[in-house]
Amino acid sequence: MASVDVPVALLGYGTVGAAVDRLLTENADDIERATGHRLRVVRALVRRPESERGFSPSDGVLTTDFASIRDDPGVAIVAEVMGGIEPARGYVLELLRAGKPVVTANKQLIAQRGGELFPAASDAGVQLRFEASVCAAIPVIKVLREALVVSNVHRVLGIVNGTTNYILTQMESGQTYAEALADAQRLGFAEADPTDDVSGADAAAKMAILATIAFGSRVTLTDVAFEGIEGIVPGHIRAADEMGMVVRLIGAATLVDGACDVRVQPALVDRHHPLAAVEGAFNAVMLQGDAIREIMLEGPGAGGIETASAVVADMVSIVGTSGTGFLQDDAAWRRLERLEPGLLESPFYLRIEVDDRAGVLAHVAERLAAHGVSVARLVQRQVGEGAALHVVTHRAPAGAVDTALAEIAALPESQGTPTRLAVVSDRGVP
Amino acid sequence: MASVDVPVALLGYGTVGAAVDRLLTENADDIERATGHRLRVVRALVRRPESERGFSPSDGVLTTDFASIRDDPGVAIVAEVMGGIEPARGYVLELLRAGKPVVTANKQLIAQRGGELFPAASDAGVQLRFEASVCAAIPVIKVLREALVVSNVHRVLGIVNGTTNYILTQMESGQTYAEALADAQRLGFAEADPTDDVSGADAAAKMAILATIAFGSRVTLTDVAFEGIEGIVPGHIRAADEMGMVVRLIGAATLVDGACDVRVQPALVDRHHPLAAVEGAFNAVMLQGDAIREIMLEGPGAGGIETASAVVADMVSIVGTSGTGFLQDDAAWRRLERLEPGLLESPFYLRIEVDDRAGVLAHVAERLAAHGVSVARLVQRQVGEGAALHVVTHRAPAGAVDTALAEIAALPESQGTPTRLAVVSDRGVP
Repeated sequence: MASVDVPVALLGYGTVGAAVDRLLTENADDIERATGHRLRVVRALVRRPESERGFSPSDGVLTTDFASIRDDPGVAIVAEVMGGIEPARGYVLELLRAGKPVVTANKQLIAQRGGELFPAASDAGVQLRFEASVCAAIPVIKVLREALVVSNVHRVLGIVNGTTNYILTQMESGQTYAEALADAQRLGFAEADPTDDVSGADAAAKMAILATIAFGSRVTLTDVAFEGIEGIVPGHIRAADEMGMVVRLIGAATLVDGACDVRVQPALVDRHHPLAAVEGAFNAVMLQGDAIREIMLEGPGAGGIETASAVVADMVSIVGTSGTGFLQDDAAWRRLERLEPGLLESPFYLRIEVDDRAGVLAHVAERLAAHGVSVARLVQRQVGEGAALHVVTHRAPAGAVDTALAEIAALPESQGTPTRLAVVSDRGVP
Repeated sequence: MASVDVPVALLGYGTVGAAVDRLLTENADDIERATGHRLRVVRALVRRPESERGFSPSDGVLTTDFASIRDDPGVAIVAEVMGGIEPARGYVLELLRAGKPVVTANKQLIAQRGGELFPAASDAGVQLRFEASVCAAIPVIKVLREALVVSNVHRVLGIVNGTTNYILTQMESGQTYAEALADAQRLGFAEADPTDDVSGADAAAKMAILATIAFGSRVTLTDVAFEGIEGIVPGHIRAADEMGMVVRLIGAATLVDGACDVRVQPALVDRHHPLAAVEGAFNAVMLQGDAIREIMLEGPGAGGIETASAVVADMVSIVGTSGTGFLQDDAAWRRLERLEPGLLESPFYLRIEVDDRAGVLAHVAERLAAHGVSVARLVQRQVGEGAALHVVTHRAPAGAVDTALAEIAALPESQGTPTRLAVVSDRGVP
């Protein structure tokens, strides 16, 4: 097989960009053995060519001139690894319109501007790939698009934020939220301002992308309801533990009768569920579908070299793909209704504080039963003068549970506001 | 995007073949939306066209005439789902030479005759895909070939046989090997003659294929050392449990300084290792490499519809791939030395029965130390008149451990033959 020279360009040459250049250089023989092509970085757009770099690019590679990349007919593929929405969005659009396939690691760009970028790629008949935008090197986009094309994936469950998973697993060994967060910051798993991670916003962007690919329908960041882990206290972790569960920040995309629901929220995960075994800063995505039951992918969800490895895999996949590849035709995507949030069914964990006197349990149970919420497990504990009821329900619509809880909160014996968390215990069925 | 008609043919129309036809028929719109192509089965080779089928093929599809598939220029892809080495091997060779891409679900065919089939595909410039041959719908071949091309994967750890994993996890809840096997047979997880599964032979074929793809070097079934679970008794499970581990049948392909070792054997897996969380008839494969640390894929490793889903994914991937795809060029593969088995390093679990008297422990420890085998954990238990030492070592070469054990067996205080099992506790490092 004759080797084919493939000149590529980068937008950005920071940690990820330098790692892409290094991987392409050091693994050129591996790539050629696997594909017959040699990819090499011929140009990289940067703001300050004189800055120190994590890897030394070849002479003349660094440039401040975007047009020299866009207008060079020799550049076969461009990888956007600069981050941020602008100017990345404008550059990517121009490149696609100029007929250049683009690979991006930018989750906000895809989650927020996919509606503009995908049609541009389709119109130009070129590929836009974005494996690195979700869970770094874990190839969940490729698997969804290419391997599970006839699986009718109807549910995606993911631990897609390493920072929060690290914090939650640290809390299992007795740390408070603040201590675990401080540790995560010290170890580089969390930013100085951790809001994007701990609020669930980062996970929401990733779930929007995963839902889009899984269901073949545009899901944007604004479609995703998200809730973070700031309110999780050691009491939640303990209560979960006593019921054989752990607390995880779970992204869930669900397709029910042609309507979809995408959300990110803290949930209790049964210890025997594979997602409960995901510890520390790792990510995992479970895909449930008709023909596959369930497939889970797990690995490090972040890191410069891991992200770069996904960028390179996308570049190599473009070289090996005919036409525009899988699911490029935005126009062919279907429209899905958004599921009424109250209709989403799940088992739930409820914590209800009540006065400790005769008849209270009956009143609570009555309110749940009145809305068709059936109790799977119940533990009652003394808390000061009152009692805390820990309830795990069978599957029930969230709306019915909320209505029952509102009525319970209004009971004269009720103390404070009851809380509820979704429970993840179900596995894919054939 | 205009729809492209893609006529395909099947060799065999049993459980998997019928499921492939059904998936292609029922999901034709999904496939077209994802790829712009409509795949339809136009011919299927069977021995008895009059037999009952799991899905009704279109009129005129079933044929007993292989040449009508091979010589039809309209047939774009052929899926071999008949199983067995002959006549499957001959048919696949003829098809490749006739320029037809082939998808196969046949692990024995690839593991035993890959050396003949891969060059034939390369010579003809057509693809040979075999995702379904390993772990059914879990897309481990695609991930290894296409997503991890620059990851320098140096270790593949797999639970690749569902029957044995089911038996071992049942034994954790107190069943004997015989009881668990009987249950597996009753539930359809094990054949009436379970030898192929419980001896490790089935897992060995899969590990040969995985090692071939992971390391880009031909590994055949004869290169794989394998040992089954027939000798596992409840005592092993209990001893593992007491040390925070579980027993699993582990396939391990390891690349050390340009030499490779591929083996299947029962091993003790640390409870915090992701492979320990794989329960029942599920399969999982962990890939460890430079740029990815570790990525694990988990799911059902068998089943007609799951296997068919992988066959269809391969067919669709052929449609979407230019040229011969990834890693088709057999001639470009490298040659790897086989690692001297005694040099393979691992932590080990040792069970040593000795007389219960002063100085014995010192003698045992001395023999281990003399061969550089360092003890990580040791538990001593009374067994009848004697004592059983349960030892977990730090990483040591298997050969050094065996030499030490032979010397320990020769001690006058020794009772019976010491046993050793590899321990899986390490995670991928960045």
